[in-house]
Amino acid sequence: MKKTIQYYQKIFTERFNSINFVKFPHELYEPIEYALKAGGKRLRPVLTIMVCDFYGNNMEEAMNPAIAIETFHNFTLVHDDIMDNAPIRRGRPTVFNKYGSNIGILSGDTMFTKAYEFVTLTREDKLPAVLKVFTKTAMEVCEGQQLDMNFEIMPEVTMDEYMQMIFLKTAVLMGACLKIGAILGNATNEQCEAIYQFGEHTGMVFQLQDDLLDTFGNEKTFGKRIGGDILDCKKTFLYVNAMEKLSGSERIAFQLLYNDKTMDEVEKIIKVKEAFIKNDVIADCKSTMQKHHDLAMEALAKTGLKPEQKAVLQEFAESMLVRDF
Amino acid sequence: MKKTIQYYQKIFTERFNSINFVKFPHELYEPIEYALKAGGKRLRPVLTIMVCDFYGNNMEEAMNPAIAIETFHNFTLVHDDIMDNAPIRRGRPTVFNKYGSNIGILSGDTMFTKAYEFVTLTREDKLPAVLKVFTKTAMEVCEGQQLDMNFEIMPEVTMDEYMQMIFLKTAVLMGACLKIGAILGNATNEQCEAIYQFGEHTGMVFQLQDDLLDTFGNEKTFGKRIGGDILDCKKTFLYVNAMEKLSGSERIAFQLLYNDKTMDEVEKIIKVKEAFIKNDVIADCKSTMQKHHDLAMEALAKTGLKPEQKAVLQEFAESMLVRDF
Repeated sequence: MKKTIQYYQKIFTERFNSINFVKFPHELYEPIEYALKAGGKRLRPVLTIMVCDFYGNNMEEAMNPAIAIETFHNFTLVHDDIMDNAPIRRGRPTVFNKYGSNIGILSGDTMFTKAYEFVTLTREDKLPAVLKVFTKTAMEVCEGQQLDMNFEIMPEVTMDEYMQMIFLKTAVLMGACLKIGAILGNATNEQCEAIYQFGEHTGMVFQLQDDLLDTFGNEKTFGKRIGGDILDCKKTFLYVNAMEKLSGSERIAFQLLYNDKTMDEVEKIIKVKEAFIKNDVIADCKSTMQKHHDLAMEALAKTGLKPEQKAVLQEFAESMLVRDF
Repeated sequence: MKKTIQYYQKIFTERFNSINFVKFPHELYEPIEYALKAGGKRLRPVLTIMVCDFYGNNMEEAMNPAIAIETFHNFTLVHDDIMDNAPIRRGRPTVFNKYGSNIGILSGDTMFTKAYEFVTLTREDKLPAVLKVFTKTAMEVCEGQQLDMNFEIMPEVTMDEYMQMIFLKTAVLMGACLKIGAILGNATNEQCEAIYQFGEHTGMVFQLQDDLLDTFGNEKTFGKRIGGDILDCKKTFLYVNAMEKLSGSERIAFQLLYNDKTMDEVEKIIKVKEAFIKNDVIADCKSTMQKHHDLAMEALAKTGLKPEQKAVLQEFAESMLVRDF
């Protein structure tokens, strides 16, 4: 079988789904099982085992850290959903919506602990390095979430601030899963650094595409209601970019429109989309994505991987540029 | 200077207070500084560095794990206060009360991450063992908190269930700080296990005395309003013990009294205290404490520590039996 992302996806998903997270007390662990078995693409842990394998080490050695990453990622979703008061994720009630926010908080804490339990199963000689990347990343993800919450009450957000937020909240974790895979694959420090850069830039592309799809995507393929960010008055790349381009009364009018919570929903979405199109924000978003994609490709060149392995990662990065899901 | 608990307390407190937890973004880290600099006795980390020193290793090696334990303990308080909707801790507004519950959740998560950051600074050859104890304990503390929340909605709680809850929620952490100190002090596995047992039993004494003080303590020395558990209808040792002794209509009457949320507060406290006294719950609580104290002393004998060191730990354990603070 050709070693595509799908190959590793199958291996990881089977392994992950075979874990039984339910134990005593049931009230604590059932929500964890619920959160972790909600499906999803498992992209992050798949990258970890794949990169370990690419660098020539047994991917089994990356399995527990990969499970840790997936558990950690889902923990952040459980707590973020409480903070965002989000009722639905992947078509099902969110954990706090189903079980209450106290259980949401505590089962999230337990998932975070569980993630560290899996990290602890890393081979001892690699443990300090893996632990360091994992913990640094966890800290940055918290900082990114805080910036995101700050944005809600800040009247203005600059593009630099916005890019820093998505870098911390989304991009660093993508870098970290690749780097952890490389560490466990016995890559050199330079190679670990290069694949980390590749991951960070690809993570930026991933998030920017998310911003685009939320407004201009196809509801059926994207799986979420289109226009959610607009209705939530969320300061996305599109909004910040438009605001940077507008001035005077046009700017004030757009700001009022975007932050209007009383307007008919369909009307608001149409009007904001018109303003985005008029101000060419799609083109700017795509060119920023392309810039990060180019930087990802530069970093990929320094990973020391074989051409056919680079091709898999390149294909992955390119899919982030054009995905509609 | 004689090496009493106070000696280590001074060293730890000075070190801990010298750490500046505030960094960017300020909205995330200021609540952390607020939570961590609220004072308190710092008992747990003090035990860690003391035991490391007792076993003959440089206590500096236990300093980062000790800071990790204190940070972790305070993280649990921040999240517990949200779950318990507790407005005040140590005479000041709780974190979520001061900053809102979203910041309470996220700065708690960040404190937990920070705790692992300090664990990661453990000497590499000791890191796997310390990490394992730390993570196992964190998991158990979460389980204990879940049981405590379950008790709120359970009509009946047995004494076994109650003891298991306080064991997980409180006692294991006391055991873990001592064990981590012993690991870092290069104690043998048997010695680590013995000091862990000593800590667990002393932790049980600590919590049972807490139950007693909450109802029968002195408001000035205890620092909390006396009768809080009664007003919160909390299933404590005292309540469970009384319920075990009562039967028939007396039992039903007591249950109704204890769970009455409309009665005048002073009247309810007086009536419940009368029922406790009538049913001899203080004596039972004290004899259970004594039983755990005796087990702690048995374990202490197996720690391989010098007589003067055992004396310090014995004095500590005895102070838990009679403390009024």
